[in-house]
Amino acid sequence: MTATPDPRKQFVRQVLNQAQTLGLSQPAEGEADAPVNIALCKYWGKRDPVLNLPVNSSLSISLPGFGTTTRLLWRPDSDVTGLQRLTLNGTPISPEDPVFQRLAAFLALFPAADQGRFDIDTHNQVPTAAGLASSASGFAALVKVMNQAFGWELSQEKCSLLARLGSGSASRSLYDGFAIWHQGLRADGLDSYATALPQVWPSLCVGLVEVDTSQKSIGSTAGMQQTVSDCDLYQAWPKQAQKALSTLQLALETQDFATLGKTAEHNALSMHATMIATWPPILYWQPQSVAAMQTVWQLRADGVGVYFTMDAGPNLKLLFEEQDRPAVEQAFGNLTILRPFARA
Amino acid sequence: MTATPDPRKQFVRQVLNQAQTLGLSQPAEGEADAPVNIALCKYWGKRDPVLNLPVNSSLSISLPGFGTTTRLLWRPDSDVTGLQRLTLNGTPISPEDPVFQRLAAFLALFPAADQGRFDIDTHNQVPTAAGLASSASGFAALVKVMNQAFGWELSQEKCSLLARLGSGSASRSLYDGFAIWHQGLRADGLDSYATALPQVWPSLCVGLVEVDTSQKSIGSTAGMQQTVSDCDLYQAWPKQAQKALSTLQLALETQDFATLGKTAEHNALSMHATMIATWPPILYWQPQSVAAMQTVWQLRADGVGVYFTMDAGPNLKLLFEEQDRPAVEQAFGNLTILRPFARA
Repeated sequence: MTATPDPRKQFVRQVLNQAQTLGLSQPAEGEADAPVNIALCKYWGKRDPVLNLPVNSSLSISLPGFGTTTRLLWRPDSDVTGLQRLTLNGTPISPEDPVFQRLAAFLALFPAADQGRFDIDTHNQVPTAAGLASSASGFAALVKVMNQAFGWELSQEKCSLLARLGSGSASRSLYDGFAIWHQGLRADGLDSYATALPQVWPSLCVGLVEVDTSQKSIGSTAGMQQTVSDCDLYQAWPKQAQKALSTLQLALETQDFATLGKTAEHNALSMHATMIATWPPILYWQPQSVAAMQTVWQLRADGVGVYFTMDAGPNLKLLFEEQDRPAVEQAFGNLTILRPFARA
Repeated sequence: MTATPDPRKQFVRQVLNQAQTLGLSQPAEGEADAPVNIALCKYWGKRDPVLNLPVNSSLSISLPGFGTTTRLLWRPDSDVTGLQRLTLNGTPISPEDPVFQRLAAFLALFPAADQGRFDIDTHNQVPTAAGLASSASGFAALVKVMNQAFGWELSQEKCSLLARLGSGSASRSLYDGFAIWHQGLRADGLDSYATALPQVWPSLCVGLVEVDTSQKSIGSTAGMQQTVSDCDLYQAWPKQAQKALSTLQLALETQDFATLGKTAEHNALSMHATMIATWPPILYWQPQSVAAMQTVWQLRADGVGVYFTMDAGPNLKLLFEEQDRPAVEQAFGNLTILRPFARA
């Protein structure tokens, strides 16, 4: 009569190691934040959907100024345990809400959830209208605040491992600047975490083009799984991504913007191509997405160094350098421009 | 000092065999027509671009009532030879025009072009606005009229071989109804021709959605070649196409419309996906193409049996059966509806 052990609980225990038993007799509290990130080489396809292990390594740029700030209060309690209260941007979230349930399920992987109650306030400074997911910054901030509140003193790599369990791309939101999430080889997932890259790129601009604010018709996890299992063309994706990753790393080292831009755009379009070629087809693009792509391509034909990337949604994220900012701003009306390496 | 022999001339000589020497002392004339066709499994990628040999077999439906009618007059002449006069829909075409030059180059492959002059009048009844290529029906009609005028008495398969040399998809325009262009295995291309399929489908409707009438930014041959040489995802295409072809043949035998429709749509989207995933990206879609796709998908969600296919252009060709015609007509404003098997 033994229950099947949850491999995620086992994973958390391994990562926490000695740290897990510390600090569970006294109330704990803290506050931490984490940025959203935009992948230039996409995470697309899971080799293990339970442990969130990816088919390919990915590379991202974080957007400081946009992300999640999370306050945590934990109190030992034998009557009520686990997530008891969650507010999002000041509004209480019902325990029936999928957001509450996803967070509660994540916290339940930690020993502290059996020994006390969590009260969590989380604030997203994320332009959700521009299609930036808050789950990456959300889980990264949550792991950071637990690490701090419980005094685990885990390295950033270990925090990245834990954040990955909540949302794959959260593994990269532990860092500012560029980061690589290494796919790893191990079945237990202990080598699949992100590390920061040393390069800075002061003139780099990211432009958020708002296309559509409505709900996605299919979630990115579902889209990913269907593509991996049903799309003939997907078989070429891992190789495409591996090539893109090497090219991007070289472009970062040599500060070669055109290579950075075209590799990111090609990688994003290849990811969308695998979705378009699955059945039933998954097309996240809206008519305005195509219009925005055409604007980018026209700008390039006119000599402006601008490229785009897209996640599992209809919005474009533009990549360009400071000197091309006026031309890009002129071509796109409603554009939010961020400079990932600008000093605040 | 031997010139490199043109493999296309060699090919024509092999196909014509004895027929080539007949009828070259007297003037010859005739008139023939051929329909346009829409591929349900696409021709995408050439294994030999000179002989127009495809990577994969393809399957099409011809659209009677739309196509090309060509009149040919040939006169033996030792002073001026080859194509001397071409009219298209009654308008004389200049020898500098690419249309004239393509036709002249094709005719130059035939012995008759060295021994006399061609005068050709060609009329297209093709809704070019809806993105139907006239090159398929044009080359098929031209080969048919030569076969007739010169008394070659070639089989339809041999005419298909010759038409293929002008334009790959022309190989399928020799026939009404469904046709398969067999990719063939031989390096000399003599086994790469189309044959007719016996099935009829009286309730089948084809709807032409007009999206855009402007020029293509990249021709389909150039797009095809770039995709074959540069796109990682293309490597999965031949397998996709082979599967689609088998599935379509079975759907024709069992008159299973849903399978016919979804296989055609999936195959077309897979072809476009290989273009989207090449670099620089090739996107034939316009914003209105995406809007039309969304309309099709919404109709299907509402229980209407409608699917689409697209060639290397922005327009959608809808596939549905007679009973769903009212719903499809209501959802699409400017729709040209054809019934390939309706008795005229």
